[in-house]
Amino acid sequence: MKKLEENSFDPRYINKFASLMTVGNGYFGLRASHEENYVNQTRGMYVAGIYNKATVNEPSDLVNLPDVAGMNIELDGEVFSLLTGEILSYKRQLNLENGELRRDILWKSRTGSRFRLTFQRFAAKNDRHVLATKLTVTSLDKPAQMKIVTGIDAQQTNFGRQHLIEEKVRVAEGDLLQGTYKTTESGHTIAIATCCTGSVKGEMSHTAKNRQLLSAINQNLLADTPFVLEKMSVIFTSLDGDLRGESPEEATEAVLRSCSAVGYDALLHKSAGEWAQFWMEKRIKVASTRDFDQLAIDFSLYQLEVMTPAHDERFSVGAKGLTGEGYKGHVFWDTEIFITPFHLYTEPEKARKLLRYRYLRLKQALDKAATNGYEGALFPWESAFTGEEETPEFAAINIKTGKRQKVASALAEHHIVADIAYTVVKYYQNTWDDWFMKKEGLELLKETSRFWISRAVEENDQLVIKDVIGPDEYTEHIDNNAFTNYMAWYNVEQALFFMDKYGDDDRQLKDRGHEFLKRLYLPKANDDKIIPQDDTFLSKPEIDLSRYKQAQGSQGILMDYSRQEVNEMQILKQADVVMLLYLLPDVFPSDIIYENLRYYEEHTIHDSSLSKAIHAIVAARAGEIEKAYEFFQESCLIDLGPNPQSSDEGLHAASLGAIWMAAMFGFANVSIKNQRLSLDPKLPSGWSELAFPLIFQGSRLHIALTHNQAVITKVSGDDVCIELNGTEFLVSDKFAMDLH
Amino acid sequence: MKKLEENSFDPRYINKFASLMTVGNGYFGLRASHEENYVNQTRGMYVAGIYNKATVNEPSDLVNLPDVAGMNIELDGEVFSLLTGEILSYKRQLNLENGELRRDILWKSRTGSRFRLTFQRFAAKNDRHVLATKLTVTSLDKPAQMKIVTGIDAQQTNFGRQHLIEEKVRVAEGDLLQGTYKTTESGHTIAIATCCTGSVKGEMSHTAKNRQLLSAINQNLLADTPFVLEKMSVIFTSLDGDLRGESPEEATEAVLRSCSAVGYDALLHKSAGEWAQFWMEKRIKVASTRDFDQLAIDFSLYQLEVMTPAHDERFSVGAKGLTGEGYKGHVFWDTEIFITPFHLYTEPEKARKLLRYRYLRLKQALDKAATNGYEGALFPWESAFTGEEETPEFAAINIKTGKRQKVASALAEHHIVADIAYTVVKYYQNTWDDWFMKKEGLELLKETSRFWISRAVEENDQLVIKDVIGPDEYTEHIDNNAFTNYMAWYNVEQALFFMDKYGDDDRQLKDRGHEFLKRLYLPKANDDKIIPQDDTFLSKPEIDLSRYKQAQGSQGILMDYSRQEVNEMQILKQADVVMLLYLLPDVFPSDIIYENLRYYEEHTIHDSSLSKAIHAIVAARAGEIEKAYEFFQESCLIDLGPNPQSSDEGLHAASLGAIWMAAMFGFANVSIKNQRLSLDPKLPSGWSELAFPLIFQGSRLHIALTHNQAVITKVSGDDVCIELNGTEFLVSDKFAMDLH
Repeated sequence: MKKLEENSFDPRYINKFASLMTVGNGYFGLRASHEENYVNQTRGMYVAGIYNKATVNEPSDLVNLPDVAGMNIELDGEVFSLLTGEILSYKRQLNLENGELRRDILWKSRTGSRFRLTFQRFAAKNDRHVLATKLTVTSLDKPAQMKIVTGIDAQQTNFGRQHLIEEKVRVAEGDLLQGTYKTTESGHTIAIATCCTGSVKGEMSHTAKNRQLLSAINQNLLADTPFVLEKMSVIFTSLDGDLRGESPEEATEAVLRSCSAVGYDALLHKSAGEWAQFWMEKRIKVASTRDFDQLAIDFSLYQLEVMTPAHDERFSVGAKGLTGEGYKGHVFWDTEIFITPFHLYTEPEKARKLLRYRYLRLKQALDKAATNGYEGALFPWESAFTGEEETPEFAAINIKTGKRQKVASALAEHHIVADIAYTVVKYYQNTWDDWFMKKEGLELLKETSRFWISRAVEENDQLVIKDVIGPDEYTEHIDNNAFTNYMAWYNVEQALFFMDKYGDDDRQLKDRGHEFLKRLYLPKANDDKIIPQDDTFLSKPEIDLSRYKQAQGSQGILMDYSRQEVNEMQILKQADVVMLLYLLPDVFPSDIIYENLRYYEEHTIHDSSLSKAIHAIVAARAGEIEKAYEFFQESCLIDLGPNPQSSDEGLHAASLGAIWMAAMFGFANVSIKNQRLSLDPKLPSGWSELAFPLIFQGSRLHIALTHNQAVITKVSGDDVCIELNGTEFLVSDKFAMDLH
Repeated sequence: MKKLEENSFDPRYINKFASLMTVGNGYFGLRASHEENYVNQTRGMYVAGIYNKATVNEPSDLVNLPDVAGMNIELDGEVFSLLTGEILSYKRQLNLENGELRRDILWKSRTGSRFRLTFQRFAAKNDRHVLATKLTVTSLDKPAQMKIVTGIDAQQTNFGRQHLIEEKVRVAEGDLLQGTYKTTESGHTIAIATCCTGSVKGEMSHTAKNRQLLSAINQNLLADTPFVLEKMSVIFTSLDGDLRGESPEEATEAVLRSCSAVGYDALLHKSAGEWAQFWMEKRIKVASTRDFDQLAIDFSLYQLEVMTPAHDERFSVGAKGLTGEGYKGHVFWDTEIFITPFHLYTEPEKARKLLRYRYLRLKQALDKAATNGYEGALFPWESAFTGEEETPEFAAINIKTGKRQKVASALAEHHIVADIAYTVVKYYQNTWDDWFMKKEGLELLKETSRFWISRAVEENDQLVIKDVIGPDEYTEHIDNNAFTNYMAWYNVEQALFFMDKYGDDDRQLKDRGHEFLKRLYLPKANDDKIIPQDDTFLSKPEIDLSRYKQAQGSQGILMDYSRQEVNEMQILKQADVVMLLYLLPDVFPSDIIYENLRYYEEHTIHDSSLSKAIHAIVAARAGEIEKAYEFFQESCLIDLGPNPQSSDEGLHAASLGAIWMAAMFGFANVSIKNQRLSLDPKLPSGWSELAFPLIFQGSRLHIALTHNQAVITKVSGDDVCIELNGTEFLVSDKFAMDLH
């Protein structure tokens, strides 16, 4: 498996690579900031679920925890930094196969001494509380004096917002540093313990000052003799379900002692074993003329695994996973629409856990609806631990007025309600999980339906949904957004279906639901076959967007126009009608799909990372395969592309899920039709093979597609009925079929 | 006047020089951090009186305010940093004469282009809300593209503790950036406005994100043509007494507009005028064989002026002035004993204001006494805005046990009560200010006396004062600390004197006071003429301290011994009995003074910055002039010496006051005896002249001393009676007397 590599040190990319090369395990994520400090380098370590409000009126942040990765290294009195001295060689690799990050440097100090430094780290996959790091230093030319200062640095903030009270710091048994911290508002306790063990015992001393608990290690280096320092760190929080009666503090100490005894290499071996299992069960393989495609897909899967807190249903996936502080670590529709599908088709229990995150916060959604004058459940546009609305009040500054602009999403971006319901249905369609569906899934469907029924208003003898924001966030406060109306309709329709299925006889809801389905206005295609995005969109003026499309992702248009001005033109940030075509493909005939894809793509800047891969899927399904492949390639560059600042505040989690989706739902064209798994492959010409594992209705399959053949293997479980290019087959073992 | 200079860029000294070269005006202080960022560079801007508790259980911090000095400068796409490219020349100068900091750099970028950059800044002395900065950039070799990003950065914290809510940010009229912040606990509002104006208009855009409100300026530089950017910033807070009915926000905008219109050079001219007045009225001039003496004294006076918030009696001087966050900006006895004397003898109204700071917090001192079971006023060991006790609970970590050690000062370092009373008396002795003394001064004397009376306990038919910490903080929890007992006695004695003077007939207090004076145990010199520092000190073992004395100021002894172990040996951190000899010189005969100075100095490491200059004074008065001069020289090195880390967290404000004191109370040997000004000069052999202005009883004098002559000039005010080397004279004009 190809590694993700950085082959030279360029400070402009420092935060991008810090996000890209995050190590983690769903419990915590550690940005790949360098051990040594650099100006503008943003360190970050996050534990899923640990949020806090810095002050009462701010939304919650995913808390940037005290840092244990930083090290100040002095070699013969000179501080090690890649900005000084000379870099004779540099290579950094994130080994996706085993989750290890490694950096090899040959460095010449300003005084001319050469040192070889290797930094290694990984987040243990077999023991989620453990971060293991290792430093190997060799003085190549002569003996040298080394001083390392490292420990636990609680000066970390979220861009200046401090979330933690330093409750206690101590040094135990002369070498174990331990800090206990408490979030100021949410009241979670975080205990961190860390310990350095070295191949040679130097002099060690400790200091505790200004929120830093540090060990200083003085070490004589012999010439050409590697010195090895291992630093293990362990994190527990008061939210942990595996404390077994211990305090977080006690737990860290016990686990740390056992890790330090095992040592870095042996720990890595164990963790790598779990990663091997992961790849065996989930990897998509492509034989492409471009090696980068495979790397991009592997990278997506690695990150999807690292970002998902599968250990605890009270947490979900933030918009940047555990890789940065963008969007404050909040949970959006991204989770259901972009991230859950991967889990649903590879490890459906994880998809259920993510849905249960919503179920466990149904009360807050009911409250939000009530507060806003609606019935049922209005899930927050942005959610964190409590499930209350967390959308910030203000966004960027208006370049014309100089005022900060209010964020309207919390008040109007209501489609998230239907997105969650949609995913509940998709979950059931794959798993037939009646245990979940009968109570929790159905309750979610019913309460979301109640919301839509109360949300619609009467106008001209129809029901309409007014003043919403659809997926396209460049068009705000509009009426009858096609996406929203159709998804609301689907939401209510499915609720009624499952109510019937499980014999739910809530007469009133049923009556109101049927009335809603009958009378809800669903925008139809006009004479040009275009489905109007909303009531006024198609009557707005158009401008030439090519300049902005070239700089897509930068939101450059907001430097030339205010949001209000953008709102009054036919400009899309991202897929909106196209998103609808993706989610509800069977509702529209193929000519409508084709025309709308063409029309709306022309008006879309793709300033949202959620856009390109969805276009890839819809294009592939529409038979525009090479166009789809272009979209796919571009979507792979959202994080992995050359823009040095694209991912400073974290990776685009949804877009990573969408890369998997594009391969699966676009090029393999997997779907569920009439309770059967359907495949209708649309392989790009550059791909000679696309192979992947998949779970459907509890059975584990392996599917290998070429341009000429499909080979489907049942790995375990019951026989599965499959529809391949329109023909049905029962897969009970291995099954090959020529295509075309 | 010699400037304070830094002649090369050495990152190890970055925070020391940031403290040393602070610009300020008593209202605010701005550390001399470079405009460009460096790893480990601690930026800081502080407004006197703006404190906040980051969390309920922490003591208040002097809040590190949003930064306006930082600038990211790109030249032809390369970020300007002195760590990259090549420094062809570097000079930084703090012009003590006019308060301007200037940095001149000739820099070659990595691509070989040469640029000349000059950075200038000052805090306006004539308008305390104004910080003016100026940048001049010249591309020497060819036209170049420059990008500057600067604005208001509210990511600043106090070592990770965030104190401010970002309440509002905006851009007004296309160029004025304004941020309004509120302290989280104390509820103060701080408004900052800033604006860039340039010699050539480039393209400017603004962003507001992550607590940063920034302008980006793109500018084409012509070859060899200076580009000038002026950036004016204005700060107002809700504590300001000069808001004239405006909000802080409104006030910043109005003042900023007028400053920007005036421009940097004209503003500097006005401010420099006020500095010229300062130096004329307060400068000490020495003709020394070592130029450094004059610089050290000038520097002290500059900093004493910059650190003192003379504009508002609700504020006092923090232990680091406005130069850093050491001791969290808290107010100690340093203010009364080390800083007030300079003001008292040069501008007595400022001394009164500092005493009124205590008077305005008398209630909190009464409360603290009551809470601790005492009567009267127990002033907090560390004080901030509210006047409540602010001493942190914990200090450094115990190297043996790994536990943080509790700070006992709040519970036992009670001598501050007498120190304040002492300074009230000294204030009156100079000023004869009955207006202050009759009510407020007397109330302070009475309540502090009440404290001591209640603090003493009966033992062996005497009154004793048990379990205190004297000035020597290496000796804790001892009984009958000589310093404390004598100072308490003096406190009560003076209270009774002023009660009589003003006809206060509080019979009960008088009776109790006289009883206290009669019965309080005052440690007497033993057969070796040594006054025991406390009941047990002289019986403790001694060790060889030479090793620690060599590394004085580093507290290196705590690396070898725990505090508890140090406590059980004859080891002083700082002057204790010697401090008593300084404050109450007339109580002890000269042989006792001589012997105690010798004995205790031998046992003193001088790990406190409060120690050396006091030894200089006592030694000078005892006729040990050359020894005194050595102490003086060493005390000048506390901040200005070669130790790169000595002043990272701010300057030693008290020690700066003590440098002035050593010159005045040591070498000029000024004192007040029998209501008369007394001089008994003790000039070091290396000083041929010592001249200084002085205010006594409202009259302004100028005194010039050589080894042979004293020339005393009355500049204004009533005739003054002076005692010179024991002889009395009435000074009505100019008066010269040969010495010896």
